[in-house]
Amino acid sequence: MPQTDLPAFDAATAVTRTEGGGLVAALDPGWDVGGGILNGGYLLSVAARAALLDSPHPHPVAVSASYLRAPAAGPATLTVVPGPAGRTLAHAGVTLADATGPALTVQVTTATLGTDEPEYRHPAPEAPSPEQCSSVAEHRELAPPGVQVPGLSLRVDTRLDPATAGWAVGRPSGEPVLRAWMRFTDGRDPDPLALLTFADALPPTSFALGDLGWAPTVQLQVLVRALPAPGWCLVEARSSEIAGGWVDEDYRIWDSTGRLVAQSRQLARSPRRRVSPRDQVT
Amino acid sequence: MPQTDLPAFDAATAVTRTEGGGLVAALDPGWDVGGGILNGGYLLSVAARAALLDSPHPHPVAVSASYLRAPAAGPATLTVVPGPAGRTLAHAGVTLADATGPALTVQVTTATLGTDEPEYRHPAPEAPSPEQCSSVAEHRELAPPGVQVPGLSLRVDTRLDPATAGWAVGRPSGEPVLRAWMRFTDGRDPDPLALLTFADALPPTSFALGDLGWAPTVQLQVLVRALPAPGWCLVEARSSEIAGGWVDEDYRIWDSTGRLVAQSRQLARSPRRRVSPRDQVT
Repeated sequence: MPQTDLPAFDAATAVTRTEGGGLVAALDPGWDVGGGILNGGYLLSVAARAALLDSPHPHPVAVSASYLRAPAAGPATLTVVPGPAGRTLAHAGVTLADATGPALTVQVTTATLGTDEPEYRHPAPEAPSPEQCSSVAEHRELAPPGVQVPGLSLRVDTRLDPATAGWAVGRPSGEPVLRAWMRFTDGRDPDPLALLTFADALPPTSFALGDLGWAPTVQLQVLVRALPAPGWCLVEARSSEIAGGWVDEDYRIWDSTGRLVAQSRQLARSPRRRVSPRDQVT
Repeated sequence: MPQTDLPAFDAATAVTRTEGGGLVAALDPGWDVGGGILNGGYLLSVAARAALLDSPHPHPVAVSASYLRAPAAGPATLTVVPGPAGRTLAHAGVTLADATGPALTVQVTTATLGTDEPEYRHPAPEAPSPEQCSSVAEHRELAPPGVQVPGLSLRVDTRLDPATAGWAVGRPSGEPVLRAWMRFTDGRDPDPLALLTFADALPPTSFALGDLGWAPTVQLQVLVRALPAPGWCLVEARSSEIAGGWVDEDYRIWDSTGRLVAQSRQLARSPRRRVSPRDQVT
């Protein structure tokens, strides 16, 4: 029975136990990054939801995934192998597979997160208010032919800080940094599962260098540090090095109170540099 | 037959195939962080070496581990489950177990690293030369009773930048940042497997806050970005947030040419604050 009363994110990441005891999900084609490729953070939220079903703890605090191949939208199975579980934390391994086979393997550590005042904190960066920022979906419509408007950007309202949005109007900053406010378009408030999606939901940092190609994630780790307050999250991604066909992306996410609530790091394949007209072989 | 001609690191991380086809290692008690606890980076190097035995690619480029429990020194078994392997990269899962059972589960992505000039690079921080820095092993000897000199610091020559070493003389900087030059004491040059050890080889960043307790790693991801040049590596660790009993540690490692060669991030349990005399219950 379709659960039409659920917010879009919860419906799209739902994991159900079959009568045989297995876990299944319906990967939603609407959470793509273009070209029918599902967002890696979205897939991570689905996998973590499966891990939570049997965990003695309610929140994912550390999640690491290897992206073996891009799964198709549609039916998926989730296999959870529970690891040691204690009073403070528990471990599990999750494999998400589509009809073709395994697509990602995930290590999930669960615990109970709170909103305790940090003993040490890294302050949030300055950014204009969401109203002074512009939507990634609109930017993508301005992008060159071949760059589609991803479904993800219609479901996660992503408002780019103009300081990092020059690439959308042909003036890339030259620094691989993107910063944006994020919330679900339907108003669902953030929680730890949502942060797993937000932690991979910006365009590739190489967009800020003028390289508008896809940067497929190879391995992604997300740490969730606290329960986020309701409202917008500020999400910043930056790369330290682009070399030999590889790029790192390092995310920090602050909630609406300025509290650091998540960090992620991924290794991705770097998009090929866009060929400028004078480089074309004639 | 003992391989006494090997450098200490290679002997301590050796993985051997048994006649039955299984993989075994002898975890060396000399790579401890105090109290008989083996260093998490050392264990990661052993696990990655196992993954490389059957990989079509020579280098670990992304390695994520969940630390289930601290394994005992002595015999260990390694189970490698190969994943998809292509022309550019290959995936594998590794479990390291001692007599009691699994101690860590690791996702390893392998590829071929080079020394290509980066398209974008983050410069190395300034630091005094190794000769102007002082050994962690010496600092630990000055530390309060109960803080042992870890075997790790005798095998990895770790020269702390004085700017981040105040904690060793009772003047913690108050910023959770540590920076040190590192190389193997016996002169073995760094390589990708060595960087996995270096990526967890500094004392906990909370030492810089005056908290000299152990910070057990829960989950650790290391990205290796390039083949390191011979000589010293500069290793910097910093934390973004300490809250609710959790701390993140974020490492960057540059080789002797100033090239970023590795990054790591871990979630650890934060050590309990040291009780100062006036806080003692009487």
